[in-house]
Amino acid sequence: MNPNDSRDIVLAFSGGLDTSFCVPYLKEQGWTVHTVFADTGGVDAEERAAIEARAAELGVASHVTIDGGPAIWNGFVKPFVWAGEGYQGQYPLLVSDRYLIVDAALARAKALGTNAIAHGCTGMGNDQVRFDLAVKAQGDYRIVAPIREIQKAHPQTRAYEQAYLEARGFSVRARQKAYTINENLLGVTLSGGEIDAWEAPGDGARGWCARREHWPLEPLEVTLRFVQGEAVALDGVDLPGEKILAKLNTMFAQYGVGRGLYTGDTTIGLKGRIVFEAPGLTALLVAHRALEEAVLTKQQNRFKPDVARKWVELVYEGFFHDPLKADLEAFLASSQRMVNGEVVLRTRGGRVDAVAVRSPHLLTSKGATYAQSADWGVEEAEGFIKLFGMSSTLWAEVNGGQGGG
Amino acid sequence: MNPNDSRDIVLAFSGGLDTSFCVPYLKEQGWTVHTVFADTGGVDAEERAAIEARAAELGVASHVTIDGGPAIWNGFVKPFVWAGEGYQGQYPLLVSDRYLIVDAALARAKALGTNAIAHGCTGMGNDQVRFDLAVKAQGDYRIVAPIREIQKAHPQTRAYEQAYLEARGFSVRARQKAYTINENLLGVTLSGGEIDAWEAPGDGARGWCARREHWPLEPLEVTLRFVQGEAVALDGVDLPGEKILAKLNTMFAQYGVGRGLYTGDTTIGLKGRIVFEAPGLTALLVAHRALEEAVLTKQQNRFKPDVARKWVELVYEGFFHDPLKADLEAFLASSQRMVNGEVVLRTRGGRVDAVAVRSPHLLTSKGATYAQSADWGVEEAEGFIKLFGMSSTLWAEVNGGQGGG
Amino acid sequence: MNPNDSRDIVLAFSGGLDTSFCVPYLKEQGWTVHTVFADTGGVDAEERAAIEARAAELGVASHVTIDGGPAIWNGFVKPFVWAGEGYQGQYPLLVSDRYLIVDAALARAKALGTNAIAHGCTGMGNDQVRFDLAVKAQGDYRIVAPIREIQKAHPQTRAYEQAYLEARGFSVRARQKAYTINENLLGVTLSGGEIDAWEAPGDGARGWCARREHWPLEPLEVTLRFVQGEAVALDGVDLPGEKILAKLNTMFAQYGVGRGLYTGDTTIGLKGRIVFEAPGLTALLVAHRALEEAVLTKQQNRFKPDVARKWVELVYEGFFHDPLKADLEAFLASSQRMVNGEVVLRTRGGRVDAVAVRSPHLLTSKGATYAQSADWGVEEAEGFIKLFGMSSTLWAEVNGGQGGG
Amino acid sequence: MNPNDSRDIVLAFSGGLDTSFCVPYLKEQGWTVHTVFADTGGVDAEERAAIEARAAELGVASHVTIDGGPAIWNGFVKPFVWAGEGYQGQYPLLVSDRYLIVDAALARAKALGTNAIAHGCTGMGNDQVRFDLAVKAQGDYRIVAPIREIQKAHPQTRAYEQAYLEARGFSVRARQKAYTINENLLGVTLSGGEIDAWEAPGDGARGWCARREHWPLEPLEVTLRFVQGEAVALDGVDLPGEKILAKLNTMFAQYGVGRGLYTGDTTIGLKGRIVFEAPGLTALLVAHRALEEAVLTKQQNRFKPDVARKWVELVYEGFFHDPLKADLEAFLASSQRMVNGEVVLRTRGGRVDAVAVRSPHLLTSKGATYAQSADWGVEEAEGFIKLFGMSSTLWAEVNGGQGGG
Repeated sequence: MNPNDSRDIVLAFSGGLDTSFCVPYLKEQGWTVHTVFADTGGVDAEERAAIEARAAELGVASHVTIDGGPAIWNGFVKPFVWAGEGYQGQYPLLVSDRYLIVDAALARAKALGTNAIAHGCTGMGNDQVRFDLAVKAQGDYRIVAPIREIQKAHPQTRAYEQAYLEARGFSVRARQKAYTINENLLGVTLSGGEIDAWEAPGDGARGWCARREHWPLEPLEVTLRFVQGEAVALDGVDLPGEKILAKLNTMFAQYGVGRGLYTGDTTIGLKGRIVFEAPGLTALLVAHRALEEAVLTKQQNRFKPDVARKWVELVYEGFFHDPLKADLEAFLASSQRMVNGEVVLRTRGGRVDAVAVRSPHLLTSKGATYAQSADWGVEEAEGFIKLFGMSSTLWAEVNGGQGGG
Repeated sequence: MNPNDSRDIVLAFSGGLDTSFCVPYLKEQGWTVHTVFADTGGVDAEERAAIEARAAELGVASHVTIDGGPAIWNGFVKPFVWAGEGYQGQYPLLVSDRYLIVDAALARAKALGTNAIAHGCTGMGNDQVRFDLAVKAQGDYRIVAPIREIQKAHPQTRAYEQAYLEARGFSVRARQKAYTINENLLGVTLSGGEIDAWEAPGDGARGWCARREHWPLEPLEVTLRFVQGEAVALDGVDLPGEKILAKLNTMFAQYGVGRGLYTGDTTIGLKGRIVFEAPGLTALLVAHRALEEAVLTKQQNRFKPDVARKWVELVYEGFFHDPLKADLEAFLASSQRMVNGEVVLRTRGGRVDAVAVRSPHLLTSKGATYAQSADWGVEEAEGFIKLFGMSSTLWAEVNGGQGGG
Repeated sequence: MNPNDSRDIVLAFSGGLDTSFCVPYLKEQGWTVHTVFADTGGVDAEERAAIEARAAELGVASHVTIDGGPAIWNGFVKPFVWAGEGYQGQYPLLVSDRYLIVDAALARAKALGTNAIAHGCTGMGNDQVRFDLAVKAQGDYRIVAPIREIQKAHPQTRAYEQAYLEARGFSVRARQKAYTINENLLGVTLSGGEIDAWEAPGDGARGWCARREHWPLEPLEVTLRFVQGEAVALDGVDLPGEKILAKLNTMFAQYGVGRGLYTGDTTIGLKGRIVFEAPGLTALLVAHRALEEAVLTKQQNRFKPDVARKWVELVYEGFFHDPLKADLEAFLASSQRMVNGEVVLRTRGGRVDAVAVRSPHLLTSKGATYAQSADWGVEEAEGFIKLFGMSSTLWAEVNGGQGGG
Repeated sequence: MNPNDSRDIVLAFSGGLDTSFCVPYLKEQGWTVHTVFADTGGVDAEERAAIEARAAELGVASHVTIDGGPAIWNGFVKPFVWAGEGYQGQYPLLVSDRYLIVDAALARAKALGTNAIAHGCTGMGNDQVRFDLAVKAQGDYRIVAPIREIQKAHPQTRAYEQAYLEARGFSVRARQKAYTINENLLGVTLSGGEIDAWEAPGDGARGWCARREHWPLEPLEVTLRFVQGEAVALDGVDLPGEKILAKLNTMFAQYGVGRGLYTGDTTIGLKGRIVFEAPGLTALLVAHRALEEAVLTKQQNRFKPDVARKWVELVYEGFFHDPLKADLEAFLASSQRMVNGEVVLRTRGGRVDAVAVRSPHLLTSKGATYAQSADWGVEEAEGFIKLFGMSSTLWAEVNGGQGGG
């Protein structure tokens, strides 16, 4: 059968109110609903089982759970750490699991022989852009977004969804949360309430990161080994990247590392203020940056942030599959050729520092210290200053030294 | 008399070994030596008196001490905070007092009617570039750099300087320090020893920032008021900028805020690893950034870092008076038109967060929350996604979705 | 009366089919229609009179013609020449008259006490973005776009408009053109037909620029004088900028200068291929660039293109009133402080060269030639090369010379 | 034998005064001199023979001539065309043959078992930076630069060299040229005299490009085929790149295409004004750009110039082997994946246009024209404008429309 004629639809499913609502809604529109849950680290085994049970309760035709860890490491974390900075210099792109969820849903659709994909994004937010563009980039799919469809008619959308489910005999978890929370292997984001109003986050606005009063007194010291810019071992033990990240999350969350608060210019143009907690990603970024500073040339360190910033913007705004992203990653991969070595991280709470760097590629004359490397004379130093500043000095000579303002 | 014929010379003087050596060395070359000490916050009254006494002991023709606080605030801190980031994204340019020291020395030279300027920079480092280019940018001065002159002939330069001074009956402070330390209103930098070798800094590598065990248990909360991007009040009290910075240094140093460690690509091309502590500047940067994120447009927030990065590079590398710096500052000043409001900073140790932002210029629909601002329908949202992603989607359609690599 | 309650509407009017249609269409929706024609140089007196007559025929309540020359010079040409490059390095933004047309319409609306504005842009193109965003940036106006409203229902939009006008007894100029043509003081653009299909433009695809067979045999030589980057005199005669531009258009069009052909990534994401002719702007850009190359420092020449490119993007995409544009213009204005002098342009056809540059700000040692300026010795030259290339050379030393790939 | 102990030296030799002088000068310093001439297209067979004879006359131990065409195409032209722009947006880097000459000399040194390399660059110019850094990047060579060594002592350097040669019985070609000329496969550069003084170049300042009076009346039309951004066929005939470039040089020089005049900020900081003629490179750049505009996404076309500009700077300034250059080329190679197709170039003199583009990767909906591609309604268009301009519009709403200045 032509996939365009299929009445099967694959729904990216989380078990929450929005995607629960989508199941009966889609069925009543004549779809046979298949749910996919891509586990990217935000849940434990119990929760995973509860999601499967919820799907069954709602009467889906099939449900699959996919281990999203390796995909999120290779598809997002690796190039993100290569890039080395967050959106607007801060936010570590914690919603990037969306792109891997799309991939899991499309793979399921292919297996089922259908071109119909559904998601629970609203029409107000930024995730719909990421979801839709990631789907469109991979083929001529039909995208159904039930929440986006109903919300203009039903401004009290969540109440409407609850009533809709209850009217059909489905249970509704009545958790009324103070904040909108998103959690996965990458970290936790919190928004809404006073955060949204640029006020100080309340005590409840907290995910993994321990409060000061619970930080251990002993310092934490961790050694990461990198091969071509990718973390491959933690404290001497080789591990898959997603395992390293999970361990770092646990270790550094105890010390409150990786928590932040910022206002972002979102894809749809509104200001979005959020609290985020990303202990593991923060540790990776700090370690990787310390290694790069020591082994990349001045030319590389100067230019690489331009590439990084664009990569981050593309991922933030939904352009995960634009060919520019692959071009930027070709640059990044090339830049990592010599990013090999070990970095020692240390925290005493609140912040993590890269206290030691070991690499065969440190850019220093063989074994020489800084001072010993400086083997030039006064004429050479003066010649450098003269030619290096030539244009600027000529300007002052010609124009009478008014450059500075 | 023609200033070029004068035998008076103005020496930028700190009272340390290098500039102490310069006094008899210059005198023996036939110069009449006038010392200038520009106090940019690194010393107290006692130390200032000691510097004056040292100059007298060495037999200078005149000595003046200048209060460098207002100059360093207006000439450096203000535009630096506008720019909003450190060198290589990290280092807060703590050596920028050099430029204001040059200005003080040139002003003194003008008063004395001479064109001769001396400084104690070595020929191995980066400060000579800053010093020389800043002087050259302001006129056709004769620059004498005694340490640079002697060090090729005397590789054990500091020992030679000590012997030279002792042979002439001058006392020598025999402080043998583990690290090279630089301290001023902006902060403290430490280098040398194990830091230079990419190893973990020892216990002694510490300036103002308290260790974890001394951090107060109570959180610190501070409110800064900004007018056009400049901090003008602290906790409701209007103060000159340099006073605000000094107070922030004291307050946040207690909590270990603003300490960092990085490897920089220096002007002369070597890798330079340093520890830095800049509690007050860090607090200013965090507060200012939080305000900017909330009141600048997306277009402004996206582009401004390019300008910032170039400004920082120019200041780091000695181009303080290149006309490009003034051009960049014209941009920065324009960008600060609406950067007015109050920011609440909070720390519990190790890191400082901007927990609240208040401004009449917050970019939000009158009084609306994020969700309330989103007053559009499904067609509009879909239209945005369609046109926003058009080029990328067409690529996938034409080329079969190979963009992502 | 509250301007929001007014039934007067101001229509930006060109006399063409689209805006002619708008008049009865708007009247039948209950509006009192006032037309504004902003003459930005695309028409002669006869044509201007015809436009006025057309407005009268269509029964407008009032019609005004505004001389847009000075506004387009000061509001667009001056900063555009400062910026110095076209969109995607090529297209000289010939549609930027839209922004000045909006200003004229808003001024008229204010005079009439209404907040209603109409334009004849389609919903398919990029001009609607420019028009709408420029209006929204200046207040809470009601925007009516009749063509955009009807075209989904009437895909043969132009035929529908003609029938609509004829049914109401209005004449219709039956010009069926091979190309869509846009003409104003800035130049001419042509699109459609084979141009749109990436084929060679036909013989008719031509505006002002003479064909090779009509180029004069004698060279043309013109001297432009600039003050702070603005052209103020042509061949020794002081003239308002818009007069200089008009004269340059005439002079250089004879030699076929300023004609181009490119494919642009438009605001709405489609590829748009056009022929453009901008003889005067091209001459201005070439002259101004030659002067800048000679008087700006290396640092300025290196960074300024980043600012230019962003300014051009903002203007192209509709962000004429985003505050970032003002910030960029503050940079540009500062960069022009020393851009004073004379430039001699010469053409023999097809291309224009800046053959001579005269300025008191040429960055050369007083009267010295290039070779004479080079007053340094071998140690100085070698010192420069050593330190300038230090990081790169260390990389090769440490990693075995694999940098080049 | 250890290459460091060898007394053989390889001299990059052109047969001109400077490198002729180097031979006896080096011999008298105890070197056994081996000359290498890398023919990069600037000479014919007769001239090549004359260079060999000159080397023999001067008594070299060996002389080799190397065909530099393939190396200059693959090592420079290919990535340069991918990058797509000249230095400061203009100069097509015609001196880049230096890097391939260095490679040829180093290969010869390896074959001879020596680490000593000599070149005839002066200490005043920019070529010494390119030569020295390219050598240093490839190993620990000893560089001898005779002209740089003698010129401080002998300011009339050329006269000294002539006398030196004549004193030893060698002939001296007494060509006294009005301009310094450099010529190779890439093009011709002319400097000195009135060009250097920012005056109009005299009639003699001309290389390959025909004057207007000799331009053929008939237009020239040429079709280039590109595969992954590399020109592989001319008018349907597959050819090696260096042959295509040579043919394009001849064809377009007849029409005066590719001639330019600009002032560059040189590596050593002085202003350098030159005339350049690069007909073939210009044709390649125009064709390649037209193809890229049509097949790259908006995101790619927006970002690629940043990469291009940095690549050009590195090559101009001597950083041919910095690892950043390889990183940038990884980006460029990735960006060329779909740059396949044919471009028709046409000239009638003075300028060349890409009049037609054919590619299976044109970014247009299958077979649709621009207008036909625009299949969206008024709500979608308005939704796009609303969200696309959201941040900017909010700014105006909050701040009262002062964005534009």
